Amino acid sequence: MLAGERWGWRSGLCEALGMEIGVLGGTGPAGRGIATRLAAAGHEVIVGSRERSRSQSVVDDLREQWGARVDGLRAGTNHEAADAALVVLATVWDAAVPTATAHADQLAGNVVISMANGLEKHGRHFVPVRSPAGSIAAEVKAAAPGAYVVAAFHLVPAAALADISRPLSGDVLVVGDEEGRPTVLELIDAIPDLRAFDAGPLENAIGLETFAAALLTVNLRHKGEGSLRIEGVGPRATP
Amino acid sequence: MLAGERWGWRSGLCEALGMEIGVLGGTGPAGRGIATRLAAAGHEVIVGSRERSRSQSVVDDLREQWGARVDGLRAGTNHEAADAALVVLATVWDAAVPTATAHADQLAGNVVISMANGLEKHGRHFVPVRSPAGSIAAEVKAAAPGAYVVAAFHLVPAAALADISRPLSGDVLVVGDEEGRPTVLELIDAIPDLRAFDAGPLENAIGLETFAAALLTVNLRHKGEGSLRIEGVGPRATP
Repeated sequence: MLAGERWGWRSGLCEALGMEIGVLGGTGPAGRGIATRLAAAGHEVIVGSRERSRSQSVVDDLREQWGARVDGLRAGTNHEAADAALVVLATVWDAAVPTATAHADQLAGNVVISMANGLEKHGRHFVPVRSPAGSIAAEVKAAAPGAYVVAAFHLVPAAALADISRPLSGDVLVVGDEEGRPTVLELIDAIPDLRAFDAGPLENAIGLETFAAALLTVNLRHKGEGSLRIEGVGPRATP
Repeated sequence: MLAGERWGWRSGLCEALGMEIGVLGGTGPAGRGIATRLAAAGHEVIVGSRERSRSQSVVDDLREQWGARVDGLRAGTNHEAADAALVVLATVWDAAVPTATAHADQLAGNVVISMANGLEKHGRHFVPVRSPAGSIAAEVKAAAPGAYVVAAFHLVPAAALADISRPLSGDVLVVGDEEGRPTVLELIDAIPDLRAFDAGPLENAIGLETFAAALLTVNLRHKGEGSLRIEGVGPRATP
């Protein structure tokens, strides 16, 4: 069953299936997680890295672990990954803006997903790193102004994305440029177990990024690992 | 059943029952909602207003609507409300800081709950109002530095708080000063249907306040009205 069927909509999902997706910083925890989950959902995914040998090693490991389920994965450089029509910026948070800057020309006209949370851990809590632009996603947009920047996946743990033997739990709020947001909403709705919610323009990325500090602090102070659910909301309304 | 029983903890709940609570700005939608819900949970609640006649009128209306269930409500001025050991700042968001400033001396040593979200609506979305201090709650703390400021209730709709004929849905993340946070966590856990989550220090108020813009935008763009649930998390862990 496609995720969309639960919601009673189907239109447009086809475009979101079988896309070529580049993951910049694909060898770190967030990158491995999102690359694995997207490959398992039927996409062609270039796992980008500054060094191809590092990317090849990660792809080899993931193929050994998951076999044919991740047939869509292939190794590449960040430069190759940045040429995909849909690019996920999955580096550690403080490398997101420099990486966007380095590939700004390539990213122009592409949809770029920013999933970075700038967080610092102090003892038993996290706090958000304040950004002068409001959010890391806004800084990415400033660094690559031709890209259609969309922020998503902030509150889904990387380990959960990576473990495709288990269903995901958690809802995904999506914010960003109008030119990219519909594609990302469809991409996420087509991942089994995930539901995507349209939370407006890129200005709202600050809410997604800074809320992560609160949610991860809950995880440090309560038993278990929290994920976010939006209750009481159905399919997107027709504008 | 006390909310705490679901979680298997009870300690300290007694202190949170039957408190005297002052609501500054108690006659607006947020104020009426929180005052009604807290009175129904067994507290003595002073509905504060700049004008006592306005407060009396609101209390008369609420008593007519809910009868003995809101026996704990009484009318008062904001000045009277600010003397309660636990004070809820429930004005419209742009009055929160001026109100805290006006009552700063009285609020010293008291626990003050800030529930303000600074939001602007633009067509089919909300965006957060940026605060130089990071959050309105942080500005309240700067305005009333002797108060123990705790931020909570941002994502619970005022109308849902006010309608005590229906169970609430939604989880409440609580952030703030160490001296006030345990009291507020207990207060919320003792409200039927609500669960309180410890999300750390006041620095994390930015996440609660700005996330509200994203969640309310979801409400504009999807069918239904969303509330937040934290899944997979149990009782607070012993530090």
